[in-house]
Amino acid sequence: MQSDNPTAAILVIGDEILSGRTREGNAHHLAQVLSATGFDLREIRVVSDDHDRIVAAVRALDGSLGGDYDLLFTSGGIGPTHDDITADAVADAHGTVLEIHPEARALLQARCDRMGVELTENRLRMARVPLGATLIQNAVSAAPGFSIGNTHVMAGVPEVFRGMVDWLIPRLSAGRPVQSQSVEVRRGESDVAEDLRAVAAEFPDLSLGSYPFQDPTGWGTNLVVRGLDAARVDQAMTVLKQRLAL
Amino acid sequence: MQSDNPTAAILVIGDEILSGRTREGNAHHLAQVLSATGFDLREIRVVSDDHDRIVAAVRALDGSLGGDYDLLFTSGGIGPTHDDITADAVADAHGTVLEIHPEARALLQARCDRMGVELTENRLRMARVPLGATLIQNAVSAAPGFSIGNTHVMAGVPEVFRGMVDWLIPRLSAGRPVQSQSVEVRRGESDVAEDLRAVAAEFPDLSLGSYPFQDPTGWGTNLVVRGLDAARVDQAMTVLKQRLAL
Repeated sequence: MQSDNPTAAILVIGDEILSGRTREGNAHHLAQVLSATGFDLREIRVVSDDHDRIVAAVRALDGSLGGDYDLLFTSGGIGPTHDDITADAVADAHGTVLEIHPEARALLQARCDRMGVELTENRLRMARVPLGATLIQNAVSAAPGFSIGNTHVMAGVPEVFRGMVDWLIPRLSAGRPVQSQSVEVRRGESDVAEDLRAVAAEFPDLSLGSYPFQDPTGWGTNLVVRGLDAARVDQAMTVLKQRLAL
Repeated sequence: MQSDNPTAAILVIGDEILSGRTREGNAHHLAQVLSATGFDLREIRVVSDDHDRIVAAVRALDGSLGGDYDLLFTSGGIGPTHDDITADAVADAHGTVLEIHPEARALLQARCDRMGVELTENRLRMARVPLGATLIQNAVSAAPGFSIGNTHVMAGVPEVFRGMVDWLIPRLSAGRPVQSQSVEVRRGESDVAEDLRAVAAEFPDLSLGSYPFQDPTGWGTNLVVRGLDAARVDQAMTVLKQRLAL
């Protein structure tokens, strides 16, 4: 698909995903938001709670550090426990150090006051952000995410992650939302491959995908046309349906 | 967690994941199988249907090509359509070319005969595997996966992927299955961080994780102890529960 949209990657930090304990859902949610907003998500990586792996991935993916994509979003590893090492690693990748951010401290203090608990050293860990970073607001649990360079660091808890995405995405410069149309055919992929290839060649500015599935009645295929221009997507889908006699 | 288990990565090829259309599930399934069998899954990557990206990822992840992990498993992009480019890219990464594999052709021919359809050029595409590769059987739809070097290439359709995993994994040399125990506490992560850190320091051979969650009754945290020695995992969980007065 031809697009001048900003490109993006997602980095998920979490042993619990790699061990199979938890099924990742944050990247899927953000992928939907990015498509609808006008960013081209090009890669998702999941790495373990390992300092060097996180540093290497941030450098490989954040364009402001010479990485492959314009923007990098991360999920996970910014809580108060010993295995929450994302902030340290992101600071390292950006060649800076962590500080207690005054605004983050104030947010945590206010929440502790409301709850009648003490701002302990463990809770204060969540106010540590890289020097020069700006905060990403968290309406759910007060502990903020942060942005540094083109890396946007968010929490792993799904409700908190979603709240941060809701706050952050409208504040970024987006491109054009992706338009898509799909149609389901009750045929195997092999039987539509020829027509699909022909339409893909006729519309090089669009992306045509085919996604086979199996259900109790047999095999079927979902055909999806995607692009930035709704009229072109519509044209391609019309041509495709004509070819397939749908 | 200390482990001599073979390390592994999963590479998912699929624009439909990156566009947010489909929620990835194959990597989650394989992650569970690998943990239970004795492989250490260290990384998951999702890349788009882009030749160069797939080649680069295979080289970065397959240890037999100088990549970071012992084994690489891939999912997606081996069907009959124009956007199924995984076989080409994997062959390229391994410095070889595609051929029509005689056994794969025979499998497809037999299935076409049973279904009373012709083995068209599009269907025959699914018999193209890198020179020197061995086949991964597919009981669901006949079109095989393949192994070359330490890269194991499987289908993206979930039922087919699972069938290939079932066939393949028992044929690989595994290490020791991961043992794990977990306990749920009705406290926030900050309130257990201290004890968790102390137990993690006492059991450096184990992995201790904490996973906060929110439900209608408030915040809670799941505490998970993982390791290769069931007795050590049991000891650590006992100590942790004592410290937390559970």
